[in-house]
Amino acid sequence: MKAEIITIGTELLLGQIVDTNSQWIGQKLAEIGIDLYYKVAVGDNKERILDTLDHSFKRADIIITTGGLGPTQDDLTREAIADALDLNLVKNEDLLIEIKNYFDKMGYQMANNNLKQAYLPQGALPINNSEGTAPGILLDKDGKIIISMPGVPIEMKTMMQETIIPYLKDKYLSNQIIKSRVIKTCGIGESSLEEIIDDILEDQSNPTIAPLASQGEVKLRLTAKANSEKEALELINSKENELKERIGEYIYGYNDDTLEKVIARLLSEKGLTIATAESCTGGLIGDRLTSIPGSSNYFERGVISYSNQAKIELLNVKEDTLQEHGAVSSQTAKEMAQGIRELANTDIAIATTGIAGPGGGSLEKPVGLVYMAIADKEGIESYEYKFNGSRNRVKYLTSQMILNLLRKKLLCK
Amino acid sequence: MKAEIITIGTELLLGQIVDTNSQWIGQKLAEIGIDLYYKVAVGDNKERILDTLDHSFKRADIIITTGGLGPTQDDLTREAIADALDLNLVKNEDLLIEIKNYFDKMGYQMANNNLKQAYLPQGALPINNSEGTAPGILLDKDGKIIISMPGVPIEMKTMMQETIIPYLKDKYLSNQIIKSRVIKTCGIGESSLEEIIDDILEDQSNPTIAPLASQGEVKLRLTAKANSEKEALELINSKENELKERIGEYIYGYNDDTLEKVIARLLSEKGLTIATAESCTGGLIGDRLTSIPGSSNYFERGVISYSNQAKIELLNVKEDTLQEHGAVSSQTAKEMAQGIRELANTDIAIATTGIAGPGGGSLEKPVGLVYMAIADKEGIESYEYKFNGSRNRVKYLTSQMILNLLRKKLLCK
Repeated sequence: MKAEIITIGTELLLGQIVDTNSQWIGQKLAEIGIDLYYKVAVGDNKERILDTLDHSFKRADIIITTGGLGPTQDDLTREAIADALDLNLVKNEDLLIEIKNYFDKMGYQMANNNLKQAYLPQGALPINNSEGTAPGILLDKDGKIIISMPGVPIEMKTMMQETIIPYLKDKYLSNQIIKSRVIKTCGIGESSLEEIIDDILEDQSNPTIAPLASQGEVKLRLTAKANSEKEALELINSKENELKERIGEYIYGYNDDTLEKVIARLLSEKGLTIATAESCTGGLIGDRLTSIPGSSNYFERGVISYSNQAKIELLNVKEDTLQEHGAVSSQTAKEMAQGIRELANTDIAIATTGIAGPGGGSLEKPVGLVYMAIADKEGIESYEYKFNGSRNRVKYLTSQMILNLLRKKLLCK
Repeated sequence: MKAEIITIGTELLLGQIVDTNSQWIGQKLAEIGIDLYYKVAVGDNKERILDTLDHSFKRADIIITTGGLGPTQDDLTREAIADALDLNLVKNEDLLIEIKNYFDKMGYQMANNNLKQAYLPQGALPINNSEGTAPGILLDKDGKIIISMPGVPIEMKTMMQETIIPYLKDKYLSNQIIKSRVIKTCGIGESSLEEIIDDILEDQSNPTIAPLASQGEVKLRLTAKANSEKEALELINSKENELKERIGEYIYGYNDDTLEKVIARLLSEKGLTIATAESCTGGLIGDRLTSIPGSSNYFERGVISYSNQAKIELLNVKEDTLQEHGAVSSQTAKEMAQGIRELANTDIAIATTGIAGPGGGSLEKPVGLVYMAIADKEGIESYEYKFNGSRNRVKYLTSQMILNLLRKKLLCK
């Protein structure tokens, strides 16, 4: 089955928004084994939407559009589909009632414009929109499926998940199951990782393995096809075990995991508390740790000790240490971690100090040089790293590295 | 002039990456007044790339491709362009030397694959790539311009800025200048803002005005066309003044400004220092303030006082206050701001305390309720807000709101 996505909206062409809809749909189609051959973005112009639809009808089996289903004059998708397939637009009384009910429930007056949304091309089914007023459109005609959804991401995604993916699975995947798992690694670069597993990557067939690097981490997406979910999972598990033998130490999680989520789980499971002392990361680590619901159960406090004075007053870093070794040093990082742990009375504490740049570097201590430390009741360990890139990249990579070191430490607790 | 973008790469269709390239190019084309009618994404498949190029040649004057210029078997753009236009690929000796030099400079051995990158379709000019090895391609044939760039964003952007935008401007814009300015506002929603200026929006012609909402702010992009830069700027200035009369209090900056950048400028100009006491924002405000180079000149320290104990120990919040009013209260916010200001000995201090959710809310103090305070030598002011949305949205909107309040305060100093 060949699919094609058409995203509709002038704002996409003017670059006013990034099209994340079609990326998300592409992922979902890949997961159920439907091949996407083209994505086309076109503006709110009827002639050009028609031209695009005509071209897509010639080459695709499944055509998915987003955008242009709203109530205004600019919303042309409904009319364009009807025109392209030479169908009339027909009023759907059930839809009209639903739309009216939606406005009643919200306590708003329905504008006359919204009436337009109760019309569908002849023979089309409405797709329920549980997040807004514009219903989607599903049309099965001459062996082609046409699916139209609103451009608002939450509305589109809900429709896909509630209605369209189950429909497509049912129609095209009666015997084949597709399962994916993303393995997330930290602490190793993409090319080094690929080198370690290059024979496995060469030999891949089912599951397929797709490496993907992003800032401070590398993911591997494993995708298996099989006749049952059990069989697909077995294929993935077996390949994962093979990978784990080589790169197990770098794997921190799966799918939607982030380092902060994994750390939240570990701290909660083990009933441990934590505090942070940040210099170069400026609060980023606190922000990441507190992005997890329930983090107040284990995150006691953080100090952003940007000045030397703050390091002395809030963390009991010794003036001598700062004088002798400097604020950016292994010794200072250690005293910061130890200081915050004692004052906050937590099981564990982490600290960062470094030169995020672009200024402030020297020959001896260049931009990107970072010291980190972890303190617990066994003692204090410190780490030295050198990162490249912009100020915010250095900050982020520092947070990524210390959170990964913390994760490893917590595993042994 | 009608332009079209073709992005090439199977990873775009599988949804493994978000296509930010074509959004960026769309913006740049809009800025120089070139109309973009379509964007097409296609995989690394020669037949389908050819089909896409053929279709684009029929309808566009300028065709811009990204991706598929690398040295591997998967990189098919060069061959596809030559085939589509029935041209031979010709070795360019200068290019070959350049590519060899690049590898010499990096201290790497050049792979044989890289030889491929020295070939261009007959009649094409190479576009210098100052960020990598793959040169771009510029072909002016039968009244059509074909521009091919690598998919790596930094390489593509540098080529656009150094070579392609000047080339397109020179070719198509000899008499017309296009200037844009983005006005950034905070503290008002999109629909309320549009209501205040709806007659101005209705009447727009030159400059055009495009509103765009994102999390915690609304932007207005003004774009003017004129015969000289001076005239274009005058058109924009005059419209901006008209807008300022209505919405001046919400405008915090222009173009690439962020609240943290504007605050950095204000603090530096006025020689003031700052400290932060964060509860619900968990370090996000510290992270934002320290994302600006040179922030160590004015940011003295921050405290992330997540626990009550931390509020008492690090900020001198009174136990009575916490008992009587709770951690999430105007009184606590005020004491936090006052405490950190005194201890850090800064000119100004800000504090946040609230319920970011999803848990922890009550009837009396629901999720999203946030108190903020600003302390300076004149005294302390506190603010109460109620935000909707996810935990991270509440955190972000809180940071946005307090930074905007801080900005206003600093303007009067």
